[in-house]
Amino acid sequence: MEKPTQQEQPRAKIAGDSLATRFFSSIIGFALLLFIMWVGLPLILPVLIGILWLATAELRDMLRLRGIELNMYFLRWGGVVMLLFSLPQLHGIYPGIPWREVALGLVLIGAFSYELLYGANIPRFAFSLMAFLYVPFMLGYLVLLRYTPDAIQGFWTLLLPIFASFSTDVGAYFVGKRFGKHKLAPSISPGKTVEGSIGGIVAGFIGLLLVAAVANAAVPFRWLELLAVSLLLSLAAQLGDLTESMLKRYCGVKDSGSFLPGHGGLLDRMDSLLFSVPLTYFLLRIFVG
Amino acid sequence: MEKPTQQEQPRAKIAGDSLATRFFSSIIGFALLLFIMWVGLPLILPVLIGILWLATAELRDMLRLRGIELNMYFLRWGGVVMLLFSLPQLHGIYPGIPWREVALGLVLIGAFSYELLYGANIPRFAFSLMAFLYVPFMLGYLVLLRYTPDAIQGFWTLLLPIFASFSTDVGAYFVGKRFGKHKLAPSISPGKTVEGSIGGIVAGFIGLLLVAAVANAAVPFRWLELLAVSLLLSLAAQLGDLTESMLKRYCGVKDSGSFLPGHGGLLDRMDSLLFSVPLTYFLLRIFVG
Repeated sequence: MEKPTQQEQPRAKIAGDSLATRFFSSIIGFALLLFIMWVGLPLILPVLIGILWLATAELRDMLRLRGIELNMYFLRWGGVVMLLFSLPQLHGIYPGIPWREVALGLVLIGAFSYELLYGANIPRFAFSLMAFLYVPFMLGYLVLLRYTPDAIQGFWTLLLPIFASFSTDVGAYFVGKRFGKHKLAPSISPGKTVEGSIGGIVAGFIGLLLVAAVANAAVPFRWLELLAVSLLLSLAAQLGDLTESMLKRYCGVKDSGSFLPGHGGLLDRMDSLLFSVPLTYFLLRIFVG
Repeated sequence: MEKPTQQEQPRAKIAGDSLATRFFSSIIGFALLLFIMWVGLPLILPVLIGILWLATAELRDMLRLRGIELNMYFLRWGGVVMLLFSLPQLHGIYPGIPWREVALGLVLIGAFSYELLYGANIPRFAFSLMAFLYVPFMLGYLVLLRYTPDAIQGFWTLLLPIFASFSTDVGAYFVGKRFGKHKLAPSISPGKTVEGSIGGIVAGFIGLLLVAAVANAAVPFRWLELLAVSLLLSLAAQLGDLTESMLKRYCGVKDSGSFLPGHGGLLDRMDSLLFSVPLTYFLLRIFVG
């Protein structure tokens, strides 16, 4: 259960330790993320399962504030099934089989059977399904993307959404703070401005240029394509951010949890990646192969 | 809006015209279904779009009784996107691209944007997502299966879930009526018995034997495999039936609508196919190729 003060803690922290803590923990988190991604599957898979457990707990605690229950077996064990069915080995050895759809089918059969046995709670099923597609279904694309097109290049293609999301966040924050005037979505996220959003798009492009400059051969997009890709990824990152804001607003919380000092919850950190990683995977599969 | 008497109509009809109407409309519907399937895509696609419109209207009217709203743009236009991305041509020309996941991603982006612009109604989003996976997402597999492995054999592979579901329904009805003693799921569907369920499984196998006897070369399973497949398909059909019963019970209706005389709504007729068609597609792709 949420303690009533917990939702207020992170805000107090931001006011106290301010930008320094925020910046510092951000850099450490980013370096850690890059290391995990670089090592590959043996580290990525356990980390993702850990993230799955924490992120679904945040969702459960948030939605509980609105009296909504989640089926945690569905989310967690079904989530593990989804991650395993996203393993690149499976897709490599048996290509052309829609493994992730098979996983979704299996998990849905499990979730339906659970409801048939325990209470036939349709709202629990609907909200759990939403949470399932939001967290484990999206996380699975991260596993796939790390090995698309292969284990070497995959590291660099995975950096595309990570750098695009990270630089979009940073760019939107600073440009919005300095030049922000016109509110973007006042009823959902009152701090966001149109100027910040444009700053995020520009910063997203710069982020991708950095990746391309370091690993030119490994990034399968030319400069003009990179501009289009960065625009799409930056928009996806911002949409992911807004979507999570919408969810938090619905639950009446400011942060999804208190996972990182000065950063709020884990979902707050992941929200833009949950949309930009799948998009990168789709763009690569469709336009690069 | 539902008229209060509408929910009672089909029951009255069954009591009046009884088994004759039920049997007659069933045979006509079945023959019509076979004809549509035989003609192929030019007829299947418009019919599926029609079914999409009617079935989502039934869901909307049912859930409205519990005060739940659905996003009909999401369900219907997103559903058309899902059907188009399920076209076998797309999967044939560009294999290995997860087109249906791309479609799901596009539709979700649309649905999120809709909520950002119009009300940030999270329950509406969650229930619409459930309805989306239940109807259009499932219907898409029907298009795919009709052309798996090709346009000729696909007709026969599509007959597998249709015959399995149909004969399961018939077998469960008659065996349950004559020998039914032990209730299967009294709180969800009080009429169903364990004996009926077993009768459904046996009848499902007989149904598949019929298809295999007529089109031996076109059915890619041997006798023993056919036994396993029929067991799975019959269970899927019964789970689909129970799932819809659960949904109807939640909404407090006896039938999903009044589409067919003596048969209740369109969803009542489709419920078992919504689970058995995707399962057949997965089994074929995994075990046959």
